Amino acid sequence: MSQLQKKLGDMPKEDFRKFGYEIIDFIADYFENLEHFPVLSQNQPNDLTNALSKSAPIQGESFPQILEDVENLILPAVTHWNHPNFHGLFSTSTSSVGVFGEMLTAAFDMKAMLWRTSPASTELEPIVLDWLRQMMGLPADFHGLIYDTASISTLHAIAMAREKLNLGIREKGMSGRTDLPLLRVYCSEQTHSSIDKAVVLLGLGTQSLVKIPTNERFEMDAEKLREAIQDDKARGHLPFCVVATIGTTSTTSIDPVDKIADICQRNNIFLHVDAAYAGSAAVVPEFQFYFKGWERADSIVTNPHKWFFTPFDLSVLYVKDLDLLKQTFSLVAEYLKVTETVTNQMDYGIQLGRRFRSLKLWFVMRYFGQEGLIERIREHCRLARLFANWVDDSENFEILAPVPFALCCFRACPKNVEDLDVLNEKIMNEINVSGEAYLSHTKLNGKFTLRLSVGSIRVEERHLRKVWDLLNEKI
Amino acid sequence: MSQLQKKLGDMPKEDFRKFGYEIIDFIADYFENLEHFPVLSQNQPNDLTNALSKSAPIQGESFPQILEDVENLILPAVTHWNHPNFHGLFSTSTSSVGVFGEMLTAAFDMKAMLWRTSPASTELEPIVLDWLRQMMGLPADFHGLIYDTASISTLHAIAMAREKLNLGIREKGMSGRTDLPLLRVYCSEQTHSSIDKAVVLLGLGTQSLVKIPTNERFEMDAEKLREAIQDDKARGHLPFCVVATIGTTSTTSIDPVDKIADICQRNNIFLHVDAAYAGSAAVVPEFQFYFKGWERADSIVTNPHKWFFTPFDLSVLYVKDLDLLKQTFSLVAEYLKVTETVTNQMDYGIQLGRRFRSLKLWFVMRYFGQEGLIERIREHCRLARLFANWVDDSENFEILAPVPFALCCFRACPKNVEDLDVLNEKIMNEINVSGEAYLSHTKLNGKFTLRLSVGSIRVEERHLRKVWDLLNEKI
Repeated sequence: MSQLQKKLGDMPKEDFRKFGYEIIDFIADYFENLEHFPVLSQNQPNDLTNALSKSAPIQGESFPQILEDVENLILPAVTHWNHPNFHGLFSTSTSSVGVFGEMLTAAFDMKAMLWRTSPASTELEPIVLDWLRQMMGLPADFHGLIYDTASISTLHAIAMAREKLNLGIREKGMSGRTDLPLLRVYCSEQTHSSIDKAVVLLGLGTQSLVKIPTNERFEMDAEKLREAIQDDKARGHLPFCVVATIGTTSTTSIDPVDKIADICQRNNIFLHVDAAYAGSAAVVPEFQFYFKGWERADSIVTNPHKWFFTPFDLSVLYVKDLDLLKQTFSLVAEYLKVTETVTNQMDYGIQLGRRFRSLKLWFVMRYFGQEGLIERIREHCRLARLFANWVDDSENFEILAPVPFALCCFRACPKNVEDLDVLNEKIMNEINVSGEAYLSHTKLNGKFTLRLSVGSIRVEERHLRKVWDLLNEKI
Repeated sequence: MSQLQKKLGDMPKEDFRKFGYEIIDFIADYFENLEHFPVLSQNQPNDLTNALSKSAPIQGESFPQILEDVENLILPAVTHWNHPNFHGLFSTSTSSVGVFGEMLTAAFDMKAMLWRTSPASTELEPIVLDWLRQMMGLPADFHGLIYDTASISTLHAIAMAREKLNLGIREKGMSGRTDLPLLRVYCSEQTHSSIDKAVVLLGLGTQSLVKIPTNERFEMDAEKLREAIQDDKARGHLPFCVVATIGTTSTTSIDPVDKIADICQRNNIFLHVDAAYAGSAAVVPEFQFYFKGWERADSIVTNPHKWFFTPFDLSVLYVKDLDLLKQTFSLVAEYLKVTETVTNQMDYGIQLGRRFRSLKLWFVMRYFGQEGLIERIREHCRLARLFANWVDDSENFEILAPVPFALCCFRACPKNVEDLDVLNEKIMNEINVSGEAYLSHTKLNGKFTLRLSVGSIRVEERHLRKVWDLLNEKI
């Protein structure tokens, strides 16, 4: 037996400590040297694939060998989201303390389904989410739940809205029935594609999703929403959910939530607010006015993994009616029945087991404190406005959308250039390929638009200056 | 500015190294001392809640202060899934090397949506899943995708099945239509509750789910499945998906997949195999016969986070028709459009961003090697059979279900006890509350049944002996 046990079990304890320190050193070096890496991986498709063995080794390998391959093979294939010059999509980054949280979550390896199998996760989660709720200035009738991504949070919100209809869809479903009107969900043309995916998954279909036009500031036109709902009702359809966005993905535009809430209230429609990106900015007192009316929503999603220095993934859904969420999903098998009258988190979502995600957010909020978090978000917004000012002051560039938060939409527009779309795409690709900085794009009113997002915990004014210099070199 | 920068940014680099070592030490101590902790947290509900501050601190706190609270407040609230005497639900545990993987995943913090934003994750994932496919003896026409949990993997499988019907549900949905027959999904009475949740979410309703009776070994009765499909067809319903399970959650029973595949083939029905738990055992050559026929499935789910020493979460969905999966979910917004002809993982699921989950599985497979993994799974099954033999040989206990893998369903049945359910529940609760070991229960043929699962990387024969002694003391 002792012979066998030597072969089995986990890594020897002295190795864990030794290699653990080595990984800490590896990560410390990585964070310290981030700026020397190209932001965008310089790999070509299949470079990594071709370098990897096609089968698992028969016998175990030493850990130093594995770590060497991380250095030589994996690292060159990483696009560095943590790089302070990653300005694409939304600039997100982890903090060091967030990594510490993930280390402990991985070590405890709990599956938070029942209170008794994970009291720590079951109790820390509502506490931390209440901290965040307070910081964001939301009233106490919002209860938070953590999911992995905003796509899943929003899916749950629309599922709740469908359940609230009380049409027996949970039991009878929607197929084989002739008594169901066409169910309708509304969002703006600028709403995130996760809403489209959600209505597909929920069996509502893309045709159930009505995309309301936006104004010149890319905000939902509330009057057009009102008309669309009225028209649908006249045709016998059943409007049941509106998704309003504070901080859309293309431009961070802000739908008129207060007006939309009026319309929802009059029509008894469930209102979900997508603040996946911008929710973090609600902690900054002077930005609170952007969020007017969101306290009237039935549910709100915000993603601390986007702009709150918390490693991916951690998305928060705040709901007013926890019982409705439970009613939508709760199904308890015998082997999961327990006698305690406690909250069992498995009752509140599609996933049965949940990672202990609240720990990393707790670490972030305690380590930086409210002041530290507010200062960082505020600074990112200042940097984005500063960049926008440079654009504004230049003859060769123009702003293409308002800059309420920390994203700037702009383009090069030098005189005497025929095709600005071609020019701007070329500029973006050249900068990205160089590895000096990473930008992404969108299309606004048919124009190829550059997007510069500021959100890394490591970003400073000099990084913005570097991008500005690069841009000016390229035109 | 320099004054401001001191306040902003991330943790000072020397602190990261110092505190990083401290966390490694903390985890090393935790792993070394696991057996001295009570398996089940000895906390009462709200103990942790009452000990925590009700608001986030205004100013940041020092990291040692935070780590102290982990030690004093969080740790007592942890039920130790890693404890070698955690035998409840399914015994799962992380390996040390899996924790290393999570550390790097957290540090890189990439969101694998597009190839270009995460070549490492996009390319490592199919490689690692092909390693696992080979080890499990599945043919090369299965392509793997990583999701968070089996609930989500299975949700995707049934969504694919629905899409395959070609009834325009992706676009037109199911509400407001009169041309859709009642869609039907089949599983056994022993199937996991995630299937129920999936049909609810997909808008099919719980009534669309037909639960086929099982035989005395808790395996789906294939003849009854055939009849149910025939009956449904005769009534004008549309059977479109069967979920067969290899290793059910209650007893690890094995549905007759080969026979079920025959029925699905004849009726053109999508076959999904739930091997979330038992899939890992397919790597052991002498257990391959349990999996007969699964190579004929359209999709298979297996969870390396259950019984492959990989930290939670990492669930794998193998599908034959990747294009169908893409067709079910792909929706590309302008800001995500890229020109490379590469795989972009966001196209294959409801979640847009994905964690770099393949890294930890790569670590586990390399560190232990195929032999090391096979030996560990084999040993767990040996231990469960050994325990079952003790039960069999005892007059005071009886086996209540076959033991194909590493779970033993049994109960105490001493003579002259009137209510065995009461006795067994009492035994379980006493053992669990003592913190010496953790068992869970199920109900089989109306009998309160104890479940002993063997799956921790740290479990040895002496741990099973300890449980056996505890049980014998209690009767």
